[in-house]
Amino acid sequence: MSDSVLATNKAVGMQAFRYVPTTMKAVVKHRFGPGAELRTVPVPQVRSREILVKVQATSICGTDVHIYTWDAWSAARIKPPMIFGHEFAGEVVVVGSEVTDVKLGDYVSAETHVVCGTCSQCRTGFKHFCKNTAILGVDIPGAFAEYVVLPAKNAWKNDRSISPEVASVQEPLGNAVHTALAGELIGNTVAVIGCGPIGVLSIGVAKAAGASAIYAIDINDYRLGLATAMGANAVFNGKNVDPVAEIKKLTGGDGVDVVFEMSGNPQAIRQGFEMMRNGGRYSMLGIPAEPMTLDIANAIVFKGATVQGITGRKMFDTWYKTAALLSSGKLDITPVITHRFSLEEFEKGFDLMLSGNCGKVILVP
Amino acid sequence: MSDSVLATNKAVGMQAFRYVPTTMKAVVKHRFGPGAELRTVPVPQVRSREILVKVQATSICGTDVHIYTWDAWSAARIKPPMIFGHEFAGEVVVVGSEVTDVKLGDYVSAETHVVCGTCSQCRTGFKHFCKNTAILGVDIPGAFAEYVVLPAKNAWKNDRSISPEVASVQEPLGNAVHTALAGELIGNTVAVIGCGPIGVLSIGVAKAAGASAIYAIDINDYRLGLATAMGANAVFNGKNVDPVAEIKKLTGGDGVDVVFEMSGNPQAIRQGFEMMRNGGRYSMLGIPAEPMTLDIANAIVFKGATVQGITGRKMFDTWYKTAALLSSGKLDITPVITHRFSLEEFEKGFDLMLSGNCGKVILVP
Amino acid sequence: MSDSVLATNKAVGMQAFRYVPTTMKAVVKHRFGPGAELRTVPVPQVRSREILVKVQATSICGTDVHIYTWDAWSAARIKPPMIFGHEFAGEVVVVGSEVTDVKLGDYVSAETHVVCGTCSQCRTGFKHFCKNTAILGVDIPGAFAEYVVLPAKNAWKNDRSISPEVASVQEPLGNAVHTALAGELIGNTVAVIGCGPIGVLSIGVAKAAGASAIYAIDINDYRLGLATAMGANAVFNGKNVDPVAEIKKLTGGDGVDVVFEMSGNPQAIRQGFEMMRNGGRYSMLGIPAEPMTLDIANAIVFKGATVQGITGRKMFDTWYKTAALLSSGKLDITPVITHRFSLEEFEKGFDLMLSGNCGKVILVP
Amino acid sequence: MSDSVLATNKAVGMQAFRYVPTTMKAVVKHRFGPGAELRTVPVPQVRSREILVKVQATSICGTDVHIYTWDAWSAARIKPPMIFGHEFAGEVVVVGSEVTDVKLGDYVSAETHVVCGTCSQCRTGFKHFCKNTAILGVDIPGAFAEYVVLPAKNAWKNDRSISPEVASVQEPLGNAVHTALAGELIGNTVAVIGCGPIGVLSIGVAKAAGASAIYAIDINDYRLGLATAMGANAVFNGKNVDPVAEIKKLTGGDGVDVVFEMSGNPQAIRQGFEMMRNGGRYSMLGIPAEPMTLDIANAIVFKGATVQGITGRKMFDTWYKTAALLSSGKLDITPVITHRFSLEEFEKGFDLMLSGNCGKVILVP
Repeated sequence: MSDSVLATNKAVGMQAFRYVPTTMKAVVKHRFGPGAELRTVPVPQVRSREILVKVQATSICGTDVHIYTWDAWSAARIKPPMIFGHEFAGEVVVVGSEVTDVKLGDYVSAETHVVCGTCSQCRTGFKHFCKNTAILGVDIPGAFAEYVVLPAKNAWKNDRSISPEVASVQEPLGNAVHTALAGELIGNTVAVIGCGPIGVLSIGVAKAAGASAIYAIDINDYRLGLATAMGANAVFNGKNVDPVAEIKKLTGGDGVDVVFEMSGNPQAIRQGFEMMRNGGRYSMLGIPAEPMTLDIANAIVFKGATVQGITGRKMFDTWYKTAALLSSGKLDITPVITHRFSLEEFEKGFDLMLSGNCGKVILVP
Repeated sequence: MSDSVLATNKAVGMQAFRYVPTTMKAVVKHRFGPGAELRTVPVPQVRSREILVKVQATSICGTDVHIYTWDAWSAARIKPPMIFGHEFAGEVVVVGSEVTDVKLGDYVSAETHVVCGTCSQCRTGFKHFCKNTAILGVDIPGAFAEYVVLPAKNAWKNDRSISPEVASVQEPLGNAVHTALAGELIGNTVAVIGCGPIGVLSIGVAKAAGASAIYAIDINDYRLGLATAMGANAVFNGKNVDPVAEIKKLTGGDGVDVVFEMSGNPQAIRQGFEMMRNGGRYSMLGIPAEPMTLDIANAIVFKGATVQGITGRKMFDTWYKTAALLSSGKLDITPVITHRFSLEEFEKGFDLMLSGNCGKVILVP
Repeated sequence: MSDSVLATNKAVGMQAFRYVPTTMKAVVKHRFGPGAELRTVPVPQVRSREILVKVQATSICGTDVHIYTWDAWSAARIKPPMIFGHEFAGEVVVVGSEVTDVKLGDYVSAETHVVCGTCSQCRTGFKHFCKNTAILGVDIPGAFAEYVVLPAKNAWKNDRSISPEVASVQEPLGNAVHTALAGELIGNTVAVIGCGPIGVLSIGVAKAAGASAIYAIDINDYRLGLATAMGANAVFNGKNVDPVAEIKKLTGGDGVDVVFEMSGNPQAIRQGFEMMRNGGRYSMLGIPAEPMTLDIANAIVFKGATVQGITGRKMFDTWYKTAALLSSGKLDITPVITHRFSLEEFEKGFDLMLSGNCGKVILVP
Repeated sequence: MSDSVLATNKAVGMQAFRYVPTTMKAVVKHRFGPGAELRTVPVPQVRSREILVKVQATSICGTDVHIYTWDAWSAARIKPPMIFGHEFAGEVVVVGSEVTDVKLGDYVSAETHVVCGTCSQCRTGFKHFCKNTAILGVDIPGAFAEYVVLPAKNAWKNDRSISPEVASVQEPLGNAVHTALAGELIGNTVAVIGCGPIGVLSIGVAKAAGASAIYAIDINDYRLGLATAMGANAVFNGKNVDPVAEIKKLTGGDGVDVVFEMSGNPQAIRQGFEMMRNGGRYSMLGIPAEPMTLDIANAIVFKGATVQGITGRKMFDTWYKTAALLSSGKLDITPVITHRFSLEEFEKGFDLMLSGNCGKVILVP
């Protein structure tokens, strides 16, 4: 065991839960360009306020697909070689010497925004806007691996009744919770535009929160099927019908009380404003790829709309809400977890994500 | 038909839907003192902005019981002879000449607070605090009768999918909705103190709104049974166990996020503060009979509590929420409607209310 | 007096305060096309729930300028011949037979949106979104006249310590109050984009509400002078400097907490998002003439912005706030009232409004 | 310099700004019982995430008076010998090895609640309710001394335009800001009950936030004079007049919109509810010494009151607001700083505090 992390860590005052090897398998963004490689790499070192987690399940995010396909954003931000991936759940196997609130054996997931804690945003309840944010799997090594290191303050202790798959998906679920709970839902009608994983998760959240009806819109029938499985009262394929007309019909001509914009598609964004009633809430998580045209006078001003930009998760209010929904049984997200692969099969997972015909895809190290 | 209301009303420009007799049966508070009498009385006249409703179901409120037993409040306020009762649903059979928004044949219930509309409270969203309020069945003739008159602006049009029994109970349900929705519930733990009809209705509302757990407290096992039927996760009989200790245990020692105080009992009110976490919400609808002792330093100040006095229903925000919960199927209140009698059997209904072993009691004219 | 309104009104049960002539001077939009005419017209009749007001001061709104110059909106909406104008203050001289809350001799201004009171928007605190709204001076005869009729429920009783000029300007001041008080201001930095009358009024409101610094932007130095007079801490002429850079400099690089968008100018709207901090509030009253391009990803989503469309005034919450600010002396709007003309000189007033080198222009009948 | 703190600290990686002696003067709670002693004690050691501040001004809090006179609370909580005092401003002279956001020479005050940062309250914006709180000058050595140690995360960097006296008073000013800004004030009427230092500071905050009128109540004319100096529109000595009647008269019979309860006096607390309008806000910072009688039905339930318990300051939202009010010049608290003594004269300061005839009393080390 002389070459084990355990030994190394012990030397600097760490506590290790059980045998930790010195190397591990990891999916590495290996070069400037498309693709990724499964490699054997050193298990990362743990500093005094960090923890090492043995990954039990990790899931693929849309951001990971961007890194995989190497879009402009990735090319500007990612520094290969780099382990990517950031959604996961696992067991704490090493604890830094100054960590007090996380214990060996804890079953954790992670808030993936590592923030400074001292800027004005961090000090006033806006940690998700910290200007000094580093993101796990983007700026620092990630979770598509057997082990991942993170600051103890970013750990979220999971209820053991929740499976690693579900616990891994809490991070994007947190985006859905943050979006949905940014205003009142009880007794309200909701349109969800874009039925990717976060969109369909938000349907489950809105349902748990008492929305009186939830309408889902996408152009992919597979995803509309997931929307129905998560509790949508009606789904519309924008290629076949005019969703604005349909939703006006269903709401007595007034439009819905609330819109969750999850698509980033300019045409869909414009339709979203049309299908919303005067005085409604329009919460935007989807990201348009470029500047777009909007009739602000009618979409926002005359309509008295409240438009909210949503980013990340509130730290840690959103996590408490998310965990409460899962452990109380008010929210069941298992219909959204549609596929599982071993870490070695990661390319199959990415191919599936690129097809659009999936919900959340789990990789098991 | 020369002596019918129809004829009379027609003479002053009313529109009558169908034959309306000149007399009707009604439960009348007939004297200063306990009791009431079933009498035959004239069908009330309809003024230009009023409507006449044929009552299909009416339900007994705790206030009606006070009038029946003739407590100090009743003796000071009620002017016999007086038709009392105010919770009802029925069909519009006469419409005043200046009424535009209610039609013959509409199926309605009523907001029972008749407000002035011109005071500062009415003009700023606080109609439920109007200083010029007259209450149906208290200050003006009520609904324990075959017909009832009300201002058209107080009518609430019901969805025809809702039964008259349920539609009648919307008014006290509105109290429960107003209390419950006075703050966030999704993912929160709630203690409901006092399981009379409004208490158990509030359990259903909290459940529909996504509360993660609801704990109910009373000293009557019949009512705790209704609490369970409406979705309480656990119920406690305060005669047998210490509800504060039980609820602390269930909430990891912290206490619940939210308390609905529906009992008016001083000891229970004090316990409510003890079982609530720091920074919690304490919404009070129950009415203590007299001034009581409270440790304000610990119950409110150090605890950072938000205490809300709740009265009436928001006009008409609460009604929209209430109706949306019922017609969407998010809330089923039928377990709370436990007994039905004909109007003639009203004394049986009051006896039952006095026993405490009932939910809502319906009278059918 | 046989041909007086007094006589006519008396015949139908009205109460008249003092002699009311049968004809009056009024500025009439006389034809489809630019311009207006001073005409002698009948004093309008008063129905049972209306009042007649002798106008003491009336002020010109930007909307009036659109009607005067006859833009596309006016051509589609206005039906000449029509008395326009809607901002005013005056004395009640005739009261309809069913009016109870307004008295002869009351000194009033008017909420100019005449709403139905029975739709769902009206019944839930959103009267300013009533779909059945008629606007004084747009859809029904207005206030550029010696007398104006309005529904009693639209009257606002002024404190007699407030001059008719100031009382007339309360209606657009209400727009400014509605915009400014749509979120927290105390201790916040504010950018006001567009220094027309409502823009400069909003500066006074923000100052009264405790904004820590207010920055004003326009391309007209006269208007920037008004902004300074109303309390702006710094003003920027967008033709000479880059307001985004200037405001970033003044806010430590972060941007302001709050933006009031009063210009409707696409370039200025885009700059407004750039000069706002993450998580800020962007309240939009200005109306872009046509659809415009916006980088929604950066302006709204990543920024976590809250964007609010503002229209009209909250009925009557905004009026209470407005009146309290004026009568308490917390807000002095007299610097914004820059010019006065007799009603006969209305063309001078409109010319001045078209030049942009004015604040509020008063017409005195 | 072998016996200097500088040398000691350097050995463990600290950075010291300038010569720091090994001993200092401090006011020490020296025994179980009344009084305190000026002693020469060691300058405290600085750990890796702490800072040492040279105190330039410190002010006496009501809590310090309780410790000085040794009431039941003090006897249960304080462990003599102990340096007490917690309000201060000064210069950072030593910085722990892991401190990154505070620099040598920074001019700081302190949030006095040292919280854990990891409990659910800390993680959801309620640090002021952390169950693991230690208070400076109560649980850990305080600021009535030449030097004080504190965790770097508790430091608040002052604007150098603010004097040490004023900067020292920011901590109780924060209580006033937290109370006042717990709801809307612009255009509202406010009653402040109890004109001790925090009460009179809250008057200044309410004025800066646009309250339309502020009424102050106390039984000490000296303090009512401070209330007037801070901007109260009217003051009432409860020994001479009935404040409820006076305030009803001033508010058209309705009562004030908002009450700040700063007295803890049961009779005054009850009067506060009587002088508040229906639907008003009642924010309680004053601490009744024991359970008291309250007519909850009329004071809270029927009134639709919102009662808020206020404790501490929001970390650090309240500090940002407080600092913005001071540095923008919206709030001038110098009238409240009425007396200054050297640290050696501390007994004079306490005597004055016990007399009640003072505002804030400053001690200069």
